[in-house]
Amino acid sequence: MYDEIENLKHQISEFGEIKIKNRIISRNNFTFIAGPCTIENYDDLMKIVLKLKEMGIKFFRGGAYKMRTSPYSFQGLGRKGLEIIKKVSDQTGMVSVSEIISPEHVHEMSEYIDILQVGTRNMHNYPLLEKLGKVSNPIILKRGMSNTIKEWLLAAEHLMEAGNKKVILCERGIRTFEDYTRNTLDISAIPAVKNLSNLPIIIDPSHSSGKREMIKSLSWAAMAAGADGIMIETHFSPETTICDSKQTIDFQMLEEIMKPMDRLVNLWRK
Amino acid sequence: MYDEIENLKHQISEFGEIKIKNRIISRNNFTFIAGPCTIENYDDLMKIVLKLKEMGIKFFRGGAYKMRTSPYSFQGLGRKGLEIIKKVSDQTGMVSVSEIISPEHVHEMSEYIDILQVGTRNMHNYPLLEKLGKVSNPIILKRGMSNTIKEWLLAAEHLMEAGNKKVILCERGIRTFEDYTRNTLDISAIPAVKNLSNLPIIIDPSHSSGKREMIKSLSWAAMAAGADGIMIETHFSPETTICDSKQTIDFQMLEEIMKPMDRLVNLWRK
Amino acid sequence: MYDEIENLKHQISEFGEIKIKNRIISRNNFTFIAGPCTIENYDDLMKIVLKLKEMGIKFFRGGAYKMRTSPYSFQGLGRKGLEIIKKVSDQTGMVSVSEIISPEHVHEMSEYIDILQVGTRNMHNYPLLEKLGKVSNPIILKRGMSNTIKEWLLAAEHLMEAGNKKVILCERGIRTFEDYTRNTLDISAIPAVKNLSNLPIIIDPSHSSGKREMIKSLSWAAMAAGADGIMIETHFSPETTICDSKQTIDFQMLEEIMKPMDRLVNLWRK
Amino acid sequence: MYDEIENLKHQISEFGEIKIKNRIISRNNFTFIAGPCTIENYDDLMKIVLKLKEMGIKFFRGGAYKMRTSPYSFQGLGRKGLEIIKKVSDQTGMVSVSEIISPEHVHEMSEYIDILQVGTRNMHNYPLLEKLGKVSNPIILKRGMSNTIKEWLLAAEHLMEAGNKKVILCERGIRTFEDYTRNTLDISAIPAVKNLSNLPIIIDPSHSSGKREMIKSLSWAAMAAGADGIMIETHFSPETTICDSKQTIDFQMLEEIMKPMDRLVNLWRK
Repeated sequence: MYDEIENLKHQISEFGEIKIKNRIISRNNFTFIAGPCTIENYDDLMKIVLKLKEMGIKFFRGGAYKMRTSPYSFQGLGRKGLEIIKKVSDQTGMVSVSEIISPEHVHEMSEYIDILQVGTRNMHNYPLLEKLGKVSNPIILKRGMSNTIKEWLLAAEHLMEAGNKKVILCERGIRTFEDYTRNTLDISAIPAVKNLSNLPIIIDPSHSSGKREMIKSLSWAAMAAGADGIMIETHFSPETTICDSKQTIDFQMLEEIMKPMDRLVNLWRK
Repeated sequence: MYDEIENLKHQISEFGEIKIKNRIISRNNFTFIAGPCTIENYDDLMKIVLKLKEMGIKFFRGGAYKMRTSPYSFQGLGRKGLEIIKKVSDQTGMVSVSEIISPEHVHEMSEYIDILQVGTRNMHNYPLLEKLGKVSNPIILKRGMSNTIKEWLLAAEHLMEAGNKKVILCERGIRTFEDYTRNTLDISAIPAVKNLSNLPIIIDPSHSSGKREMIKSLSWAAMAAGADGIMIETHFSPETTICDSKQTIDFQMLEEIMKPMDRLVNLWRK
Repeated sequence: MYDEIENLKHQISEFGEIKIKNRIISRNNFTFIAGPCTIENYDDLMKIVLKLKEMGIKFFRGGAYKMRTSPYSFQGLGRKGLEIIKKVSDQTGMVSVSEIISPEHVHEMSEYIDILQVGTRNMHNYPLLEKLGKVSNPIILKRGMSNTIKEWLLAAEHLMEAGNKKVILCERGIRTFEDYTRNTLDISAIPAVKNLSNLPIIIDPSHSSGKREMIKSLSWAAMAAGADGIMIETHFSPETTICDSKQTIDFQMLEEIMKPMDRLVNLWRK
Repeated sequence: MYDEIENLKHQISEFGEIKIKNRIISRNNFTFIAGPCTIENYDDLMKIVLKLKEMGIKFFRGGAYKMRTSPYSFQGLGRKGLEIIKKVSDQTGMVSVSEIISPEHVHEMSEYIDILQVGTRNMHNYPLLEKLGKVSNPIILKRGMSNTIKEWLLAAEHLMEAGNKKVILCERGIRTFEDYTRNTLDISAIPAVKNLSNLPIIIDPSHSSGKREMIKSLSWAAMAAGADGIMIETHFSPETTICDSKQTIDFQMLEEIMKPMDRLVNLWRK
């Protein structure tokens, strides 16, 4: 069954590097992304991003449009959130990452945001992927929570066939019968993707576990397993953040996680 | 955990009937929908729909826009398909059902198609649901293949909160470890939805099994379990149809399935 | 992958009927089994079994040895339970069904009990299956809650290869991400087994749902889908029974379930 | 729901160390276990174990009784295999690990083997666990492939309540919809178990992936995540081994995996 993806046209073609601002994302550069679940206001985001910059991090994440299971939950700041992200990104020189949830937002968001993230619920939103094939922003393509690796790579192929080769895969946990964790981080996706594709793969330990106290363990596991990057929900005050509070870590924990990063990543460098 | 959906605002409110053309969809009318996976051309669709009408069926389905896992598969006739559906629907008086895959198609499709179907990959496409909240067409909301009943009802709530109360739930199989069938039909969803919501629920035995030889058994199970309707992929020549060939049945099988329908449905009538 | 089970030696061989006392279990006789989760005492069991007999039922179930997830739960009456079951069976002429949990109990239980049931946690307990291959009692082989149909049929093949051809398959729900129900009844297992094997297949709607209010719907679904029997946890006072209280039904509900049984079963008779 | 296991009697009691021969298994000693899937003959096992010893490994594994899905597969050497293991263990001073599959083998195996392993299909074989509660051998308790962490810890509690406190947990992959890997290694089980229990937890990357080329990545992930040990199927000639050939590695790969072990394990030492 996997035969048909052993020769995916675009993913086995020569693969260079994804350049964004003066950063490079590739299998030779570990990409560290941190930031809040959702943008709450300019001051808080600026405070967070400045702290990340001080710690040597170059990428920040933050949601403006949210996909919420309940229609009665906070849906994000929308356009206003985008403006805040752009302002902070411009003022700090940091690369921004934010989720896009509709083909109707592609034009607008491609102007405001550096890297567009396709969330787990939109991995197989082919009309969205088609439109994203036309922009020049790099795309972080999260794995659908119930999708096989094969379907995930085919979704990447949709993006690439539509014209955008700057695809970064992100494993964020799959749905299983286990209910102690929010999802089950499929750590095997790292070596699997390395066998089947040339795309960089990053890990999101926050959504996969849903539990702050597991982030360090899962982050180190990802680095040691050969991931090309990591994305962690971080806030100066996790307890009071609007969403995903239980899985958000503070800066002290972030520092602890980063400490052995170089050593771990270097396990896989020749 | 299910506490929070035991009082979903819209789903427990008084619920009447969904009227479309001169048909009524409700818990007191069994709704039978049949037709091809995808529209291939006017002649073939007309031939199928006339046969369905002759058999006493009032609803036909057929895809114009397709969600395909591989970018290299047939993606449907698009706009041209919509025109064919409308023409056939107008000429026969039959109610049409077709899948909508993008918020950008809502305006167009609401003109051409009677009932809009949200597919399993779009159950949690909230921007799409929001837009569908603004049209007057009834919506068939398929359950996401990895979604809980709770999340499904919350997606229905999204639609209703956005303004469209004409929601029909459709169970079409969930993803499990079992690989003999394409998906696992969750027959328990029928009594579960009846406990938790007032919305009508129909069953799609074609996508849940992926196997023609199972359709009769699953259809009768659905009727006996109390489903309010059924939707079956049907074609005069299943072997030569462009897509979903293995799960499509012919008219002879359709007739066999319909034979005991009244008796089965009446098990649940007072 | 299913190729290798399309020719299972024993399951495609000529298949007659399983005779037990003066009853026959086969694809031409619907087998109805009811009774309590666990044996509590002689009087209560006798009261239940007499009522079942009065209703025309010929088989009763009841546990003496229990598999309990927690070491601190009630583990069953053991040997004393077997004696009660045998006494009630002898006095009423009813066929008894009880679960066997260890190869060390095979000799003892084969004397006391008519039909031995292998529970979901023991489907792949090959040392147990091997020993059960040597007795003459019919075996109800429940599907492992996380096993494929293929693995289930191979477990039946273990029993048959070891010498016991009197195998009855029982689908009792599989483990999925859905948590509204205790397990997910895989109704498709009925047509699947009919395609792949000659063994009779019965359904346990009690363990698959874990919810009393669903039993009627699932039982009728099983009958209409072509099941060869059904096994339901029943007690005169479900609320006060020691175990599985929430999924146990009373006699009134049992009667309601049985009412259309003949009509439903006859859908599949020529 | 996890409330009830937050105070498991035995697992939160003071926990020392598991001593076996002159080795200690604990949260302060990383335990490395390697060896073939199944014992084939004395010479091959001796050759493998001597090589492992030379590499500084103190534990070897090897199956004598096998749980095979098909009744037509090789079932292991049985008693003869136990004798070979004991002889090799005595001659080399290495600690032996072998799987026990029936309560009827407990007496015999406790004499021949140092550490008894309960396989994934027997995690909830309570009669077996009860008997193992009476022996003095340490027990490796593999997680059931479809069991929650909660059920796994409750199975450990069964063993401990029955009298055996020397329990080592082993995560070996769970069953999901993903089919590229044989199972999905639940790496999150490591921090989860550390939160909920005092028992040591080891990882089996061989069965979880089923793919030789993933073992290095998963092993390093396990070490970095804080596992207390690892168990890997190893053979001098993986291609020609009787079983599990595709997931068995050779000594060169084993050496590569062990190289950064100390550095990785030390991430978690104070």
